[in-house]
Amino acid sequence: MSFPSPTIKEILERYKVIWALNHASSLMGWDREVNMPEEGIGGRSLAAAEIAKLVQKLMLDEEFVKLIDKADGEELTDIERGVVRMLKRDLKFYRKVPPEIVAEFAKVTSEAFVAWRTAKEKADFKVFAPYLERVVQLARVIADKLGYEEHPYDALLDLHEEGLTSRDVENIFSTLEPGIRRLLDKISTSGWPKHHPLEEEPYDRRSMEEAIREILATIGYPERRFRIDVSPHPFTIGIASPFDVRITVRYPPKDFKEPLFSAIHEFGHALYELGVDEALAYTPVGTGVSLGVHESQSRFWENIVGRSRQFVSLISPILRRHLSNLARYSDEDIYYYFNVVRPSLIRTEADEVTYNLHILLRYRIERLMIAGEVKVTDVPSLWNEEMERLLGVRPRNDAEGVLQDIHWSHGSIGYFPTYTLGNVIAAQIKYAMGFLEDAVASGDFAKIKEWLRERIHRWGATYPPKELVRRATGETYNPSYLLKYLENKYR
Amino acid sequence: MSFPSPTIKEILERYKVIWALNHASSLMGWDREVNMPEEGIGGRSLAAAEIAKLVQKLMLDEEFVKLIDKADGEELTDIERGVVRMLKRDLKFYRKVPPEIVAEFAKVTSEAFVAWRTAKEKADFKVFAPYLERVVQLARVIADKLGYEEHPYDALLDLHEEGLTSRDVENIFSTLEPGIRRLLDKISTSGWPKHHPLEEEPYDRRSMEEAIREILATIGYPERRFRIDVSPHPFTIGIASPFDVRITVRYPPKDFKEPLFSAIHEFGHALYELGVDEALAYTPVGTGVSLGVHESQSRFWENIVGRSRQFVSLISPILRRHLSNLARYSDEDIYYYFNVVRPSLIRTEADEVTYNLHILLRYRIERLMIAGEVKVTDVPSLWNEEMERLLGVRPRNDAEGVLQDIHWSHGSIGYFPTYTLGNVIAAQIKYAMGFLEDAVASGDFAKIKEWLRERIHRWGATYPPKELVRRATGETYNPSYLLKYLENKYR
Repeated sequence: MSFPSPTIKEILERYKVIWALNHASSLMGWDREVNMPEEGIGGRSLAAAEIAKLVQKLMLDEEFVKLIDKADGEELTDIERGVVRMLKRDLKFYRKVPPEIVAEFAKVTSEAFVAWRTAKEKADFKVFAPYLERVVQLARVIADKLGYEEHPYDALLDLHEEGLTSRDVENIFSTLEPGIRRLLDKISTSGWPKHHPLEEEPYDRRSMEEAIREILATIGYPERRFRIDVSPHPFTIGIASPFDVRITVRYPPKDFKEPLFSAIHEFGHALYELGVDEALAYTPVGTGVSLGVHESQSRFWENIVGRSRQFVSLISPILRRHLSNLARYSDEDIYYYFNVVRPSLIRTEADEVTYNLHILLRYRIERLMIAGEVKVTDVPSLWNEEMERLLGVRPRNDAEGVLQDIHWSHGSIGYFPTYTLGNVIAAQIKYAMGFLEDAVASGDFAKIKEWLRERIHRWGATYPPKELVRRATGETYNPSYLLKYLENKYR
Repeated sequence: MSFPSPTIKEILERYKVIWALNHASSLMGWDREVNMPEEGIGGRSLAAAEIAKLVQKLMLDEEFVKLIDKADGEELTDIERGVVRMLKRDLKFYRKVPPEIVAEFAKVTSEAFVAWRTAKEKADFKVFAPYLERVVQLARVIADKLGYEEHPYDALLDLHEEGLTSRDVENIFSTLEPGIRRLLDKISTSGWPKHHPLEEEPYDRRSMEEAIREILATIGYPERRFRIDVSPHPFTIGIASPFDVRITVRYPPKDFKEPLFSAIHEFGHALYELGVDEALAYTPVGTGVSLGVHESQSRFWENIVGRSRQFVSLISPILRRHLSNLARYSDEDIYYYFNVVRPSLIRTEADEVTYNLHILLRYRIERLMIAGEVKVTDVPSLWNEEMERLLGVRPRNDAEGVLQDIHWSHGSIGYFPTYTLGNVIAAQIKYAMGFLEDAVASGDFAKIKEWLRERIHRWGATYPPKELVRRATGETYNPSYLLKYLENKYR
């Protein structure tokens, strides 16, 4: 992996300062969640905004843009093409969406966030509605500025997942929706556990921290490149991939699978960033290519590996050593505790069977809002009806319905589908890999990680998501593997 | 405190991005010492260098410089004048010292650091000598570029402490040297303890952490603006003064006064940054004015408050609650443990009586090196002779002699005198304040902090150090107070 083109070399030389600013922004974001004293927020926000403006200015620097255009006309290696592609993606946004709109969007979403928080506390959508309306209007303006072929929502999808279209998403859900609903019907009458007593049991936090550290060490990570901290919302960040990658975990007072699986989930993200080829460090392709591919890595480890029988057998001795109450439970018990299936109202608490129906609901509503085909004020009733139709449960109020997610208040529209895409790709990987169960059963994580690194991680953002998935699994997005995986597991 | 001049308003508006970059650099530095996984160092160094170059570029921006020149000719408030003064200080350096020299200095010192580490391990000055020679040569070049009135060393002093000259330093030591040596002679025959058994006793680290937190809380700090971490070398940093200020502590395995006093020392620095007027935040004057004034705050709390009888009585219940072995010792014992006086080889282990003689030694040698009046190869023997003359002890090897400090390898020449200056100012403050012993005895730290805030902290870098000290204590640097304080305490 190298960069033979002199034009690309010059681009990368000039890109260093942009990388440096992004590095600083990442660290500032991580620190805000993990360490920052509360009243540091004013200075931190000021600095983040100033640095974002500076990045935009440096990206739009005339000579830099000329170099990119020049490189775009040259014979390039795959990696070099990746560099140009990633830079052009950023440039497209900066050029087509005027700074005034970006500034207005920042202002509207910061107000919308406050309104959302109040609305959720009061379980009253009306408080949030006017802000959501403005968010949707602005998102539509941004979609129009960016352009699209078939549907304005596609422009927003592409912002979050390069190349993803409504057509892709429709194709995925046209398989998943009937398949999952059929499966849910079967599960509901099969006696598969809907609840487990461990969900209500508290655990010792320090013991759980140790257990998690030991379990992640069993999978394996480079100690001098990785760290684990605590924050209110778990996340992963490549501060300087692949040399400095960090995850955070949250410890609710009961139900130890929560911190366990959120840690394994984030660890999946981290392995991706840790696996990027060192030669790509500090370049525009030196990080995971997209949210969807990233989510495929986190879901692969969290669900497909983490909730498997083989993994339970492997880690149950560690868990038993740290959590005394587990003496009362067999590995079989733990397996069912990890895999309770229960249609529920809250997305973040959903199991792997029902999860994608929560995404489908959000996707449909977002697309209608952006097209102006549903009025924002009608969204709560639409939400509740769809919820009942898809999952057979109905929110008692807006807080456990339409107001549950923070994302719309942040202006993230076109983002949720990347979660389902991640689940879809994760299952494709499982079947393309072939040896997963055996490798997990024998604790041969090196083999699994090697497969992922060779086919996915090392490339960073060299290939666009669809091409990367095709190269790694032999085909593009194919939801039938996810269905097959779920049907095999929950039959 | 406000900024009526429209020119200054514009300067401050433009300065925000520079503040943002400095904020990012501070955080990156803090994180490197406290959190960063080891292998993150490559990316961190790259980012730090890129951001430093960017700051220089933005500072030298033609329009920005014009605005500063324009403001310089206007009627300004004290604070506005401070803004111009601080910016012009930076500009002077950037303009007079060409980027090539800055880059070469960075290269030389980074190599010198590696050589110093090896040399110290081998206790062999010869390994370090050629690098020190280059550091001294370059420091001399920088001094010549910056210009000076009487001695090239003055240019280097001014770099570290605005306005400080060899003349000031000579004046300080002409009082301190004979005074301290006289005092040391008396102490050595008076039976004042030279050793204490607690110096050899291990302590429980977690208990000590709690004790320190409680003791600092007794002095008082704003919880939402402050944090304490652990790092190999304790330091204080205003990430966004006065809203986000952080200290670090180190916990050696024995001798609990080490972490205790290093924490109180750093806390003194932190109180300065926390006391800066909020209106000065994010401006060039929104931080402590200089190393010397900063050191006056840390030494004031560490030595003058922290090692006093009144303070021992106040905190001994906290220490006893956390450290079980203290049951065997009276408050009187603890007081003498805190105040052991013993001429020793290592500066960082020196007590408050002998400390300034270590600085005098370094100051004299630095000044001779910069003037070319001593050859670098002759420095070790000069060191050993002076050490014996000043303190009556002679290093057995270079590691415990001339190689003990990291600073020269970093290129910090002209820096050590700010430590003695800090001690001098701290004693001036004690006597100017007048009520210190009573306030400490009654635990009225609010009164002490209020005095410091009103006269020193709130002004940030508004006034140059000498003027600030004159305003706060009624006179400029006067070493006789330090001598008086020491003579009273150790008689």
